[in-house]
Amino acid sequence: MSLLLKNVTHQGEITDILIENGHFAHIAPNQNTFSAQVLDCHNKAILPAFYNLHSHAGMSIFRGLSDDKELFSWLNQDIWPREAKLTPDMIYLASKFSILEMIKTGTVFFLDMYFEQQEILKAATEMGVRTISALTGLDLFDAAKTKAEKEKIEKYITCPYDNKELCRKGLMIHAVYSVSEDLIRYIVKRAKGENFYLTLHASETAKEVEDCLQTHGCTPIEYLNKLGALDSQTIVAHAVHLTDNDIALLARKKVPLCTNPISNYKLASGLFMLQKLQKAGCVLTLGTDSMASNNNLSMLDEMKTCALSAKIQSGDATAGCAEDIFAMATVNGAKAVGLDAGVIEEGKLADCILVDLNNHFLVPNYNLISNMVYSADSSCIDTVICNGNILMQNHVVPGEKELITEIKKLSNFFRN
Amino acid sequence: MSLLLKNVTHQGEITDILIENGHFAHIAPNQNTFSAQVLDCHNKAILPAFYNLHSHAGMSIFRGLSDDKELFSWLNQDIWPREAKLTPDMIYLASKFSILEMIKTGTVFFLDMYFEQQEILKAATEMGVRTISALTGLDLFDAAKTKAEKEKIEKYITCPYDNKELCRKGLMIHAVYSVSEDLIRYIVKRAKGENFYLTLHASETAKEVEDCLQTHGCTPIEYLNKLGALDSQTIVAHAVHLTDNDIALLARKKVPLCTNPISNYKLASGLFMLQKLQKAGCVLTLGTDSMASNNNLSMLDEMKTCALSAKIQSGDATAGCAEDIFAMATVNGAKAVGLDAGVIEEGKLADCILVDLNNHFLVPNYNLISNMVYSADSSCIDTVICNGNILMQNHVVPGEKELITEIKKLSNFFRN
Repeated sequence: MSLLLKNVTHQGEITDILIENGHFAHIAPNQNTFSAQVLDCHNKAILPAFYNLHSHAGMSIFRGLSDDKELFSWLNQDIWPREAKLTPDMIYLASKFSILEMIKTGTVFFLDMYFEQQEILKAATEMGVRTISALTGLDLFDAAKTKAEKEKIEKYITCPYDNKELCRKGLMIHAVYSVSEDLIRYIVKRAKGENFYLTLHASETAKEVEDCLQTHGCTPIEYLNKLGALDSQTIVAHAVHLTDNDIALLARKKVPLCTNPISNYKLASGLFMLQKLQKAGCVLTLGTDSMASNNNLSMLDEMKTCALSAKIQSGDATAGCAEDIFAMATVNGAKAVGLDAGVIEEGKLADCILVDLNNHFLVPNYNLISNMVYSADSSCIDTVICNGNILMQNHVVPGEKELITEIKKLSNFFRN
Repeated sequence: MSLLLKNVTHQGEITDILIENGHFAHIAPNQNTFSAQVLDCHNKAILPAFYNLHSHAGMSIFRGLSDDKELFSWLNQDIWPREAKLTPDMIYLASKFSILEMIKTGTVFFLDMYFEQQEILKAATEMGVRTISALTGLDLFDAAKTKAEKEKIEKYITCPYDNKELCRKGLMIHAVYSVSEDLIRYIVKRAKGENFYLTLHASETAKEVEDCLQTHGCTPIEYLNKLGALDSQTIVAHAVHLTDNDIALLARKKVPLCTNPISNYKLASGLFMLQKLQKAGCVLTLGTDSMASNNNLSMLDEMKTCALSAKIQSGDATAGCAEDIFAMATVNGAKAVGLDAGVIEEGKLADCILVDLNNHFLVPNYNLISNMVYSADSSCIDTVICNGNILMQNHVVPGEKELITEIKKLSNFFRN
C-alpha cells in the first residue's frame, strides 16, 4: 500500500511525498498518482509527528478529578482509592482514550508505564500508534511484594501480543524511594536480557534526592548508576534536581532524559535545567506525564511550557529556542527509543502530521517551527500519519465519538 | 432582538437562557421560543467569556518573526525597524486579526495599547467585541516629544468614534523608564478629567526596579503612586518585581494588577507572586500581552501558564487553583474595567462562550473549570457571544478566511 501526499508544503516548498511500506519513499514534485492513494495537501505543511516519552495512559479517567492539592493528600485521598478499583478493561478503555487525545494533538508514539501494560499494547495496536509499554516494578521494600513483582515481570515478558511492528514491551523501575535494590537489579538484568528499553522516575523532587542521600549516601542518579540501570536504553523521566556530578554522568552515558515540565509545575516539583543540561551534552526528550497531573496529553502544550520554563529557569530569553524544543518533541524522542524517524526525509519512517497553513494560529508564517512551539493548538493539526497509515484526517479519528461516550459512562463510576 | 439558548448546560444542569438587550434576561428551563432567535445548545455548556486586560493588537503581524532573543537585540534589530514601517491601515488590519484570534479563543474584551488607537476602536467595532483602547504616552524624556505626545492625546480624546456601547477610550503611561514626570502627570490629569481608565507597564523586570531606585529613590510603584497614577481605575500590567511595601500599597488602593505570565516567561522577566498578592488582597486579572511575546492571544493558554507558574513560584501545589485563575480571566477582569459581566446570572451583560462537552479535552467532566484551565484548547469553544450578539458559531467567525488572506499578504511586506 502506498500513499501520495500531493502538493504538500515541505520546508517552505510545495512538493509531493510518496510513502511506501511505512517509509518516506520519494520526495519530489510532480509525482504520478496512478499507483497510490492520493491525499490533497494544498495549503498544508508536513512536519514530523510527536514522540511522547513519558505517559501513564490508563490515568485518563482521572482527568480533573482532583487538582491543586499537595501531592500526598492528592494520592491518598483521591487517586490511590480509585486506582484500587481499576480493572484491566477500564485501563484498556482509558488508554484508548489517551491515545485518541495523543492522535488529536499529533503524537504517534508514547512510552507508557502503569499497571496491566498488556492492555496498553492492545489499545495502541487498535489505535494504530507506536508504543513501548513498560511494566512498572514497585515493591515498597516488602520482600513478599518483590517476589510477586518478579513473577509479574516474567509473566509480562512472555505474554503474547499482536503488533510487533509498532509495539514493544519495556520495563520500569518506579523510583529509588519505592523499589528495593533487589528488584532494581532484577529489572535491569531482565531488561538487558530481553533487549528491552527501561524507564524510571528519578530526581523528581528535592525530597527524593535528600532522602536518597540519607539512605544510600548518594543521589538517585548515582545510586541507579551503581546498580547498572543507566545507559542509552534507559529513559530517565523528570530529572529535575540534579547535581553537577549527576549531569556529567548522564551526559557521559548518553542517558536520554525526558522532561515533563507541566507535571513538574503542577505538582510544584521544580524547574528542569534545560540550558545547563544541553550545554553538558545530555540527550533531551519530552513527555506529558498523565492527564492527572497535566491535564492533557498535548505535546504542543508541553513544548510551549518547556521553552518558556527554560528561559525563566536560566534567566536567559535565548534558552530553550523553538528549534531545539521542537527537536526534543520529535527527532530526539524518536532516536532515544531507537526509531529512525522524527524528520521528513527519504528512507525515514513515515510518521508525520499535516498542519493547516490557513489556521489563524499559524499566520503569519515567518517561522513554522516557532508557530508550532509558541502559537499552535490542536486546531492546527489536520492529519496524522503513523507508519504510513492515516490515523486522523480532517481532524477526525475513526471511532472517536463512541470512545468518548464510553469514557463518559465510565467516569460516572469514579465520580464519588 | 432576543436570543434563546435552548437546553444549555449551566452549572451542571440543563436549562434555557434568554438574552435580551445585551443582558441575560431569564434563566429557567422550558422557556417558549416564539419571540426569540433560538440556538440549540444540546451538549454545550455556557461559561463566561474571557476579558484580556493587556494586549497590543497591532503587533499580530510580527508573530514568529523573532523569538528566543535577548530583549534589547529583539527590539533593536527586529521589532523597532519594522514598527517604523507600520501605517494606520496596517495597524487596523493587524488588530482585526488579533481580535479574530481572541474570538476564536473565547475573549470578548481587550484592554489594548499601541500606536494609532483610533484604528483599534474601528477594528473592535467591526468585529463586535468590547475594548478599552488606551493611547500610549511615551516621550523618552525629550521635551519636544512631551509636547507632541500631549497634542496626540488631546487629538485622541476628541476624535469621534461609533460604538460607544462596547468601546471606550483610555490612556496609557508606557513605563517609568520611558515617560517623563511631566507627561505622566499630564496623562493622569487628563484620564481623570475624562473619566478614562488608565493603564501602564510597571515592575516588569528587575532592572526597571533597580534603575528607578537609583533615579527616583523609590520603586516604580511608589513613584507612580507619588504622581497620583494609582487607583482602582489604573490597571498595572506585569507587576513582577514588587516589594512588600509595593504590595501593601497596591492592595490598599485596590489597583487591578494584570499578570501576563507567558510574556514574562518568554522574555525571562520573572515570576508573578500570585499567591502572595492574593493573600495581600490585591485585585488580580489576566492578559496575554502581544503575539510578539507569547505568541498567541489565547486566554486558555494564559490561564494554564498562570496556574502552573503560581505553584512553581510559591513551591506550593495548592497555589493558583483553577477556580481562582478562571475568575481572574473572567469576572475579575470584567469588574476591573467596570463591566457588570463575567458570570452567567440574570441581569449581567450577555458575554459568554459555549463549550462542546463532547470535545475530548473536556472528558471526563468531573470539574468543568479545571478542564478549562488545565486541559482545554480552542477546539473546545464552539460559540462566542458578546453583548448578546453571536460572534462565532460552530467555530466559524464570519469573514475569517478573507482576513487571514489579507494578513498573509501583509506579512510578505515585513518578511525581510
